[in-house]
Amino acid sequence: MTWDKLFAKRTSQMKRSTVREILKLTSQPDVISFAGGLPAPELFPVERIQQAAELALTERGREALQYSTSEGMPELRGWIADRLSTETLKVKPENILIVSGSQQAQDIVGKILFDEGDAVIVENPTYVGMLTAWRPYLLDFAAVPTDHDGMQIDALAALLEKRSFKAAYSIPNFQNPQGVTLSYERRVKLAELLARYDLPLYEDDPYGALRYSGETLPSVQQVEAVVRKTSALDDCTTMYAGTFSKTLTPGLRVGWIAAAFPVIDKLVQAKQAADLHTSTLNQFIVYEAVRDGSFLDDHIARLREVYRQRRDLMLRTMEECFPAEVTWTRPEGGLFLLVTMPERMDATEILKLALEQKVAFVPADSFHIGEMGRNTFRLNFSNARPEMIEAGIRRLGALLKDAVRVAI
Amino acid sequence: MTWDKLFAKRTSQMKRSTVREILKLTSQPDVISFAGGLPAPELFPVERIQQAAELALTERGREALQYSTSEGMPELRGWIADRLSTETLKVKPENILIVSGSQQAQDIVGKILFDEGDAVIVENPTYVGMLTAWRPYLLDFAAVPTDHDGMQIDALAALLEKRSFKAAYSIPNFQNPQGVTLSYERRVKLAELLARYDLPLYEDDPYGALRYSGETLPSVQQVEAVVRKTSALDDCTTMYAGTFSKTLTPGLRVGWIAAAFPVIDKLVQAKQAADLHTSTLNQFIVYEAVRDGSFLDDHIARLREVYRQRRDLMLRTMEECFPAEVTWTRPEGGLFLLVTMPERMDATEILKLALEQKVAFVPADSFHIGEMGRNTFRLNFSNARPEMIEAGIRRLGALLKDAVRVAI
Repeated sequence: MTWDKLFAKRTSQMKRSTVREILKLTSQPDVISFAGGLPAPELFPVERIQQAAELALTERGREALQYSTSEGMPELRGWIADRLSTETLKVKPENILIVSGSQQAQDIVGKILFDEGDAVIVENPTYVGMLTAWRPYLLDFAAVPTDHDGMQIDALAALLEKRSFKAAYSIPNFQNPQGVTLSYERRVKLAELLARYDLPLYEDDPYGALRYSGETLPSVQQVEAVVRKTSALDDCTTMYAGTFSKTLTPGLRVGWIAAAFPVIDKLVQAKQAADLHTSTLNQFIVYEAVRDGSFLDDHIARLREVYRQRRDLMLRTMEECFPAEVTWTRPEGGLFLLVTMPERMDATEILKLALEQKVAFVPADSFHIGEMGRNTFRLNFSNARPEMIEAGIRRLGALLKDAVRVAI
Repeated sequence: MTWDKLFAKRTSQMKRSTVREILKLTSQPDVISFAGGLPAPELFPVERIQQAAELALTERGREALQYSTSEGMPELRGWIADRLSTETLKVKPENILIVSGSQQAQDIVGKILFDEGDAVIVENPTYVGMLTAWRPYLLDFAAVPTDHDGMQIDALAALLEKRSFKAAYSIPNFQNPQGVTLSYERRVKLAELLARYDLPLYEDDPYGALRYSGETLPSVQQVEAVVRKTSALDDCTTMYAGTFSKTLTPGLRVGWIAAAFPVIDKLVQAKQAADLHTSTLNQFIVYEAVRDGSFLDDHIARLREVYRQRRDLMLRTMEECFPAEVTWTRPEGGLFLLVTMPERMDATEILKLALEQKVAFVPADSFHIGEMGRNTFRLNFSNARPEMIEAGIRRLGALLKDAVRVAI
C-alpha cells in the first residue's frame, strides 16, 4: 500500500505544527517550557467547573448529554451576544455560532470562503495555526508588515489598491507571535478600508480580555460598525472569533464566532458537516460557570494580575541577562513576546542548545510568510511559575551571550 | 454586502440537512417524532457520567481542563485499541485517532483523500450526513444498489472492473437509513475486492453494538485482515469509524477512527487544523466511565433489551395498521427502518399530513443518489417510548391507508 498516491493534492500542504511537536518533547517535568500557548493550570477555576458540571448534570442531565443544534446552546449564544453588544453595536444571538474552540472557526470560515488560488491578506509574522488551517485551501497569502502598533495599514491600503483580495486575517490584540496591539488610529483606518472594499476580515481575538497595561480598545468589528454608521452586525464584514480557552479553560473546547447572518448561516452548514455540534455538556458547563457575569470578571481580573507579574518578571530578567544585540517586543497583554536575534543567527540551532539546558521555546520562522524570521523566536510567559521564568530566562541569556559572541 | 459572491464554489454544495431542520420543527413536546437518530435519553447513564466527571475533575482536574494532544488521550486510545483487537487483528494505540464524534472522522477523511472530481462508491440509499460532509469536495458518487443483505457486491465488482475509484463508503451494520446488514459472505467478497484493488473503504459503524437479533458479524476491517493474511492494521485499507454516541451518550462528542498509521498520521494534521483536539475533559469522562469494561457491556445489554422491544413493537404495529401496498425493512439492530410506499406517492407530502396529526419522520429522498426515493421514508424506533410508538404508528397507518386509496 502506498498511501501517498491516494491522498488529495491539499494533503501535501498539511504539515505537523512545529509548535505542537515541540510541545510533546517538552512535556518532561524538568524542562522549563516557554514554548506552548498554555494558560497557567494552577489558575484554572476547577471548583467552579466542577460545580457547573454537577449543576448541569443534576438539573438537566438528559438534555446535556443528548444531541443538540449545530448553532449552539441558545442561552449561551444569547449571553455572548449580550456581552459583545455595546452602545453602538447590537449583536443578536443569530449572529453567534458556538464552535469547538476558536480554531474550528478558522477551519470552517476557510471552508466557506476559499477557492484554490484566492488571495488573502495576513500580518507577517502571523498565527501558525491559521496557516495550518488555511494552507490546504492553496491560497495566495499576501504579507503585510507589522511594527509595534500592529499591521501597517498604509502598506495594506497600497496592496488593496493594486488588486483584489478574498479576505484579511488579523489578531489586533497582543498578536501571536509578536504580542503587539493594533493602535486605535489603525483600527479606524482598517475599518474604513473594510467598508470601502467590502473586504471580509477575520478578527481573531483569543487574548483580548488579558490586558495588563495600556487602555482597552474597541474591536475592529465595533469600529467597523461605527465607520459604516450601523448598529447591526449584518451590515459588517468583520467576522469576530472569541474563545473561553484563555479566560476559563481550554480543555472544554468552547469558542464562538460573531458575524453577519448570511455568514453564520453558511458556517452552520459547514459546522454540521464538521462535527454536528459542539459538546452539549461543555456548553452547559460554560454557561453555568459564566452566566452571572461577575465570576468570570473576577476570574479574569485574577488572571491579569498573575500574568502581569509574569510578563514583568520575564521582561525584567531579559533586560538584565540578554545580550545587547538581541531585541524583543513588550506586549501590553496576552501570552507571548517575540525575540529577534542578529540576522545571521538561527533560532532552531539556539533551541537545540537551549534544550540541552532544559529550556524550550518556539522558533518563529514557521509563523512567517516567505523566507523570513529564522532569527526570531517566541516566548510564552503565562504558563511557567515565577521561579521557573527567572531560572529559564537566565539560562537562555547566558546561552545567547555565548552564541552572539560566536556569531559576531 | 452581497455575501453570495464571496463564498467559495464548494459552498453552493452546502445545504442545511433536511433531517436536522425537521428535528427542529419536531422539538415541541406533543409531537411523536420518529424523525431523528436520537438515543433514548431516559436510558442515559447520567449517574455514571456524573461520577466519571467528578473523578476526572477531582483527581486530574488541571490536566482534564488543559490543552492536550491532537491524537487523543493515550489511555483512551489504548482502551479502544484493545477493544478492537481480536485473535487475528492486533490494533495498536497508534492506529487510533480520537475525534469529536464520528461525523468529524468523515470530515477529515474527506479532507485528506479527495480532490475535485474523485469517484467514490456509496450504497444507495446512504447516510445523508456523509453526503453533507463529502459533497463540498465536488465528488462523483457512484451508487451501488442494496438489498436485505446490504450492498450488492456483484454490482460493486462490475463497477470496479470498469474504472478506478478513490474510495468506498459503507455502513455494514444496520445501515442508515435502511437498517439492513451486510451478510458475512458479502463482507468476505468486499474484503477480497479491497485487497485486489487496494481500495480504501470508510467503514462507518455507529450502531454495531446495538444488535437485537441474528448473529454478531466481524467488521469488514477484521475480515480484510484475514483476507490479506495480516494481523496488522497498517496493511489494511479499511478505515473503521466508531463512536460512544450510541452506546454511552452523544452529547460528549467522542468517537474514533482506526486505520493504518500513514492515514492516522495525516488525519492528525487535519484534526489539528480542524479543532486542535477533542475536549480533554470529555475524553477523561468517557475513559473513566468505560475503563473497567463491564459497566459499558452491561449498559449496552440494557440498551439492546429496551431497543429490541421498541423495534418489535413498531414492526408489530406496522404489520397491523399499515396498508398492504406499503413495505418496509426488518432490521436486526440499530435505530432505523425504511418504509417504501407505491412509486407515485411522495413522502414529503405524507409528512405534511403526518405533522398535522403530530407525527414526524424523515423523507428519505435526500439519502438517495440520483432522482430516487421520493416514495420512501425513515422511521426511528429508539427515541420514542412504547406508548408513543404505538400511538404514532397507528396514526401513520390510518393516514397511509387514506393516502394509498387516493393515490390508486
